[in-house]
Amino acid sequence: MADISYRTHLLPTAGMTPRMALHQAYLATRQTTESLAAPLTPEDQTVQAMPDASPTKWHLAHTSWFFETFLLQPFLPGYTSFNPTYGYLFNSYYDAIGERHPRSQRGLLSRPTVAEVLYYRAEVDTAMADLLAAVEEDGNGPVASLLRLGIHHEQQHQELILTDILNLFARNPLHPAYRPNREVVGSRGASHRSLTWIGFPGGVVQIGHPSPAASSQTSAFAYDNESPRHDVLLRPFRLASRLVTNGEWQAFIDAGGYRRADLWLADGWAAVDSEQWEAPLYWLGTSDGGRRQMTLHGLQELEAEAPVCNVSFYEADAFARWSGKRLPSEAEWEVAAMSASPAGNMLRSGALQPLPAPEPEPGRPPLMQMFGDVWEWTASPYLPYPGYTPASGAVGEYNGKFMCNQMVLRGGSCLTPDEHIRASYRNFFYPYQRWQMSGVRLAEDVE
Amino acid sequence: MADISYRTHLLPTAGMTPRMALHQAYLATRQTTESLAAPLTPEDQTVQAMPDASPTKWHLAHTSWFFETFLLQPFLPGYTSFNPTYGYLFNSYYDAIGERHPRSQRGLLSRPTVAEVLYYRAEVDTAMADLLAAVEEDGNGPVASLLRLGIHHEQQHQELILTDILNLFARNPLHPAYRPNREVVGSRGASHRSLTWIGFPGGVVQIGHPSPAASSQTSAFAYDNESPRHDVLLRPFRLASRLVTNGEWQAFIDAGGYRRADLWLADGWAAVDSEQWEAPLYWLGTSDGGRRQMTLHGLQELEAEAPVCNVSFYEADAFARWSGKRLPSEAEWEVAAMSASPAGNMLRSGALQPLPAPEPEPGRPPLMQMFGDVWEWTASPYLPYPGYTPASGAVGEYNGKFMCNQMVLRGGSCLTPDEHIRASYRNFFYPYQRWQMSGVRLAEDVE
Amino acid sequence: MADISYRTHLLPTAGMTPRMALHQAYLATRQTTESLAAPLTPEDQTVQAMPDASPTKWHLAHTSWFFETFLLQPFLPGYTSFNPTYGYLFNSYYDAIGERHPRSQRGLLSRPTVAEVLYYRAEVDTAMADLLAAVEEDGNGPVASLLRLGIHHEQQHQELILTDILNLFARNPLHPAYRPNREVVGSRGASHRSLTWIGFPGGVVQIGHPSPAASSQTSAFAYDNESPRHDVLLRPFRLASRLVTNGEWQAFIDAGGYRRADLWLADGWAAVDSEQWEAPLYWLGTSDGGRRQMTLHGLQELEAEAPVCNVSFYEADAFARWSGKRLPSEAEWEVAAMSASPAGNMLRSGALQPLPAPEPEPGRPPLMQMFGDVWEWTASPYLPYPGYTPASGAVGEYNGKFMCNQMVLRGGSCLTPDEHIRASYRNFFYPYQRWQMSGVRLAEDVE
Amino acid sequence: MADISYRTHLLPTAGMTPRMALHQAYLATRQTTESLAAPLTPEDQTVQAMPDASPTKWHLAHTSWFFETFLLQPFLPGYTSFNPTYGYLFNSYYDAIGERHPRSQRGLLSRPTVAEVLYYRAEVDTAMADLLAAVEEDGNGPVASLLRLGIHHEQQHQELILTDILNLFARNPLHPAYRPNREVVGSRGASHRSLTWIGFPGGVVQIGHPSPAASSQTSAFAYDNESPRHDVLLRPFRLASRLVTNGEWQAFIDAGGYRRADLWLADGWAAVDSEQWEAPLYWLGTSDGGRRQMTLHGLQELEAEAPVCNVSFYEADAFARWSGKRLPSEAEWEVAAMSASPAGNMLRSGALQPLPAPEPEPGRPPLMQMFGDVWEWTASPYLPYPGYTPASGAVGEYNGKFMCNQMVLRGGSCLTPDEHIRASYRNFFYPYQRWQMSGVRLAEDVE
Repeated sequence: MADISYRTHLLPTAGMTPRMALHQAYLATRQTTESLAAPLTPEDQTVQAMPDASPTKWHLAHTSWFFETFLLQPFLPGYTSFNPTYGYLFNSYYDAIGERHPRSQRGLLSRPTVAEVLYYRAEVDTAMADLLAAVEEDGNGPVASLLRLGIHHEQQHQELILTDILNLFARNPLHPAYRPNREVVGSRGASHRSLTWIGFPGGVVQIGHPSPAASSQTSAFAYDNESPRHDVLLRPFRLASRLVTNGEWQAFIDAGGYRRADLWLADGWAAVDSEQWEAPLYWLGTSDGGRRQMTLHGLQELEAEAPVCNVSFYEADAFARWSGKRLPSEAEWEVAAMSASPAGNMLRSGALQPLPAPEPEPGRPPLMQMFGDVWEWTASPYLPYPGYTPASGAVGEYNGKFMCNQMVLRGGSCLTPDEHIRASYRNFFYPYQRWQMSGVRLAEDVE
Repeated sequence: MADISYRTHLLPTAGMTPRMALHQAYLATRQTTESLAAPLTPEDQTVQAMPDASPTKWHLAHTSWFFETFLLQPFLPGYTSFNPTYGYLFNSYYDAIGERHPRSQRGLLSRPTVAEVLYYRAEVDTAMADLLAAVEEDGNGPVASLLRLGIHHEQQHQELILTDILNLFARNPLHPAYRPNREVVGSRGASHRSLTWIGFPGGVVQIGHPSPAASSQTSAFAYDNESPRHDVLLRPFRLASRLVTNGEWQAFIDAGGYRRADLWLADGWAAVDSEQWEAPLYWLGTSDGGRRQMTLHGLQELEAEAPVCNVSFYEADAFARWSGKRLPSEAEWEVAAMSASPAGNMLRSGALQPLPAPEPEPGRPPLMQMFGDVWEWTASPYLPYPGYTPASGAVGEYNGKFMCNQMVLRGGSCLTPDEHIRASYRNFFYPYQRWQMSGVRLAEDVE
Repeated sequence: MADISYRTHLLPTAGMTPRMALHQAYLATRQTTESLAAPLTPEDQTVQAMPDASPTKWHLAHTSWFFETFLLQPFLPGYTSFNPTYGYLFNSYYDAIGERHPRSQRGLLSRPTVAEVLYYRAEVDTAMADLLAAVEEDGNGPVASLLRLGIHHEQQHQELILTDILNLFARNPLHPAYRPNREVVGSRGASHRSLTWIGFPGGVVQIGHPSPAASSQTSAFAYDNESPRHDVLLRPFRLASRLVTNGEWQAFIDAGGYRRADLWLADGWAAVDSEQWEAPLYWLGTSDGGRRQMTLHGLQELEAEAPVCNVSFYEADAFARWSGKRLPSEAEWEVAAMSASPAGNMLRSGALQPLPAPEPEPGRPPLMQMFGDVWEWTASPYLPYPGYTPASGAVGEYNGKFMCNQMVLRGGSCLTPDEHIRASYRNFFYPYQRWQMSGVRLAEDVE
Repeated sequence: MADISYRTHLLPTAGMTPRMALHQAYLATRQTTESLAAPLTPEDQTVQAMPDASPTKWHLAHTSWFFETFLLQPFLPGYTSFNPTYGYLFNSYYDAIGERHPRSQRGLLSRPTVAEVLYYRAEVDTAMADLLAAVEEDGNGPVASLLRLGIHHEQQHQELILTDILNLFARNPLHPAYRPNREVVGSRGASHRSLTWIGFPGGVVQIGHPSPAASSQTSAFAYDNESPRHDVLLRPFRLASRLVTNGEWQAFIDAGGYRRADLWLADGWAAVDSEQWEAPLYWLGTSDGGRRQMTLHGLQELEAEAPVCNVSFYEADAFARWSGKRLPSEAEWEVAAMSASPAGNMLRSGALQPLPAPEPEPGRPPLMQMFGDVWEWTASPYLPYPGYTPASGAVGEYNGKFMCNQMVLRGGSCLTPDEHIRASYRNFFYPYQRWQMSGVRLAEDVE
């Protein structure tokens, strides 16, 4: 895809020192972020669609604030804050850093303008070049470690820029497209892709990222919430070979899925009632009874074979119950993911929406779509692993304080930067949230 | 002031036919609106600060929608709607026209962009030229009458553009200025301008605009809510010669005005409590105990002699009670205004904020600041005059349906276009609203 | 009616001194209040149906608190507060008295029990007997004056006990009846009572109660908001000879009255939408398309000829617009009421609901139902009369601080104590409120 | 304690058939419920303190509705519903049964009165006697099984009657006592009871109730959510020998526990902010800096050695983090509970509030207070056990649909009926809820 300048050189190439590779990764990440914002007007980049989402402009500034706050201010001698008020405006949720602008009012900030934010980014990049020059060539030490965190942090916001802009455009009666002319990928036929069940044995297995120390290695970054690696006890289980499709979801709707209380968790049923849910978030009915779906390519006919997305955990759980199946636990998912291909439909593909699974073929691994397409809701509440300790200081607020009331999702989506995802990666959202690229893979017990 | 291209040629000049004058007034009004938006970035023009306010961009589009809906569509043969969705997006409150975008979500519309809205304006102007060519040279008939309404409607939105952008900027911790370098006008000394009481006799007098029919005359436009002219019975009264100042308001605060329930109407006291009012809307305390005020010129030291503004009716009423005075009725105000100079600090002056009253001088009328500076809260609920009938059709929703729960304000403000105001003009807001340029003139009974 | 011990001896009878008459009036009022509560269970007397309403028990206690606070504590030497916490619990809205229990939480107070409240009442009555013994025999002086206020205050709460209990019972799916076996009064036929229009001349007339000083006379109590008596200028007008009926209201509904935005004030239309109004408050549809109405006698068939009640100002105003008429101003109403019979269907009749107007008869005054049946919404916002001054001290909060955002109603209702009403009496409620016995009389201009 | 007629004969005694024992258990449970309500006035039994709580009267009726709905209607031939509207009013949350009265409006029902509800209970008991006569003597079969469920259901509501009435009384400025004269139990000294850490080995262990089938045995009732019994993998851990005390909690407060964001989960910190939490729910500051606590015995001095109660999960978690410890998982708790004494301070003791732990003594099990005193928050979200299947039919809504967003609590409280609790018992509440008798026991890892 030519029009997203997606930079992939995050791993060292021949002849580069780890320090050089790190600097290159930093620059590539920064440029990718800006290229994602480039198709958007200043107006698009300013509006906040809802409290859960943020303006593009805010993402652009906040990721720079992160480098300024956790790297430049503590480690670059003589560095002066670009603008002290920015520290208030672009702190997301770090209580240890100080007071901050209310999340729900990010869309009231017409200033700084997009141009001013880009200038801020450039100034941070210049200072970061100075700081990077002082990093050890072997890419170790606290600065390098925090730099890796900052790069992966910015990758998360790359995905959020796209999910948040889709939400904004979906609320606009003009239905703007982020990228208008989609090259249609995959079939739109009504025939259902075959689904098989892949079995896995039970027993005591290990999940989690090997060790926190490893995150100082260039090749193996992980967030603190993926550690420690630890034993879990599994019972034999089976996973569906592919994701649940739009066509299957339509059958759930047609069977009264959104009107049968017995299929739902109590809190989910309350959400159906109060939010008037009748279909996934971006589905629209048409006057002739058909379905359209709002996407980053604008309004499209619904693609029956493509994975359903933008469903909440409550909906995923109700669908599974209706199917006589269940959602996998995060441990089951991670164990299975070890055997799956790490490739998938992620940001680099440029599809910007989930795609139908390929037909199974002899010689290809049967477990498909584990990475990319949609984040997969698991049955696991987001909890600390046994022995988990958050990093010390403000950066310790990155993950740990959210370990309550949220559910784990796994596998990344079509909007996730390809370098960002791995088998041990734990994403998390509240069970009612639907604006992420979240979908469903079914699991079942082995009798 | 050179930098607001404020067009003043709304009245016919020598040699012009009424039709030509009307066309010129239309163009001048349209250009003034755009010149008011010109200093603002696309980001500024997109955000909605609160449900009562609207984005600049929306004002630009809505005023065009007004001409499109009430003039082009009914009267220009073959005219095709510029974009049918715009009819949904830019209808403000006309139920007879159809469904509309929720008022509180105007700030979610990143599209159409500012550029697209300006293009829409240009297209409407082109079509309006065609329509105007067909108006009678004497400037009569329904098209001319609706055109005058549209011009005055757009003037109202000129004032709203400025009050709404001030509100937006006041919510931004960066405190941007609409026009940065204010040439300070008037003294900032602590000495209080002398205030005298001007007496008026009671009796049966007439108020209101002469007749609805007159509004078809070029020289005497009035809204339907200013008619019919009718008798009212007044008791002798006195009006203060000037507006209440910031310095006087500070004395009210210092005397515990915002903490004494006995000074307030019950609903006002509830607002003090729930909204935590402690001062006028845009006043800020400083660390050294001083006061600053957010203005269109940015944060400024509070000017003691300037009229207080951005106070609610509840505050105006409490201040009057604390002063041992009262607010004037709208009839008292109108009768008094007949004897006052129609000149004042309005939009054309370029001050963009209320200014201190001049010192009284022999030979100058003693009643000052009746027009301009700040809208003056009256003690009168906004009600229909006896015999009032709204216009027929959707345009009848312009005024009549708001005649409940609001209070009348009189006299225009520093942001009101100079041609827009007159002695019979009735503005109206809810008693809790503060984001307009609203202030106070005191009245008292004659024993 | 034997089962409400409605005590009527509020005026002096032969041989009584004014002091004795006042004591008798006090006792009669207190006993009437308790007799109104007598048919209710302790459970009924405890619940608060909504924030606007209060539990019966609270009314019983608050009226006693009024005598304790404004009479016993300041005037009875050595009087000790019955229970200091009661001063917090039973203060309604007097800021000058001190902190108070939140209005919306009156229904959380299971204690004091009904029995404890009745004991409190008895203790207050005992102390009041001591205080009354010291009043001058001519019934003058501040104690007598405040006592009259306290008696009329308690009469207001007698009406509220009944309106609030009706609201509570209407929310209960069991539809309990306050008094089960209603003796049906009046016809239920479909034929419409004839309505005539009674004309009144315009000019300068006087309204209001003669003078505040007069309220110290036993025979002529009035609230401070009814004074001063003052001139008003009226245009010639006509009033309907009777109230609007349920049958006429049904016609309004059938004509789409609740679905036509053009009939409504903007705030009223917003209430129709948010509150889903489709009929007066206590009307229920039946499965066979008929109508029932919740009353103090339980669910009843709707009586077509009876006056409509439990409508808001917004509904009254929309109905009048639909009828091509308007609501009267309070001055028009008061002037007309001078010529009407002061008798009517009030509390003493025992009907407990509005009754059909009698058929006009020669020799009977043509203007009917001016007093009793339902409070009549006027077009007049509740404002101070020219020269109005509230009483000094906490008791000055009785009326004055509510003179904003409310509309005046006139004439009393079927639940108003007969001694309580008079031509100059001004009741007031917010335009959205419907739980009072509020109805409609139409007016029109004379061309 | 003589004044609560707590009936303990739930297990068969010599000579009784299982059917007779079951009937006796039914009657004892019903009588205990009524004896718990007996000290309350009709007013107390009517009010709903908040949406989470219910009026006593509602508990009395709902438990009867349960027997009527799940036993009498399906199994007693010819049984006619006592009052069809009761089915609407007293259904708690069973969607399969039909529409129901909104939970938040239970306090609006002044009818049926307490007396009517007691009559309803008596009628249900009479019909239940008929039904019980037909149960098999061996106490098996579906009726017996549902009867056991109904008995345990009513026991849950016995605890709720007390927690809900405490909440109501705590909101009343009069601070009524449920049982006024408490015989003080335990020391109030400042010396801290010694706390030791009891170690447990890790490994694969089993938790959960043996089998669903077993619940048809008289002696071993369990809810469906306690099954299936299954393997879990534990790491070695230690549990505190006793509960966290009020004195320890005061130290947490004194150390700024409620003001340090770093101790809290993000959602917990948001609750501290929005709810203004500064101490456990029923703690009050006194003017001399001391502490009082609202209890069922009224306001009391805070007892330093008694277990803290009425804290949320968020507070429990923050306290544990401040202590450098953690909360136990539910599996850890259950494994440890096997070794603890099943006796404790439960409803039968009559204390009605948690009591200080006894001093450890040689020969006594070191793990104390596992049962009774307070429910112990665990770190475990409430989830289905592997292989869990809810019962079929409406009764399947009893537990399963709540398995999201809530946390598990274990061990029962001072208000739990003694027969009701067991090691496998899983209670569950939302992490913000505080009105239950919920407290804290700490755990720690073994390095």
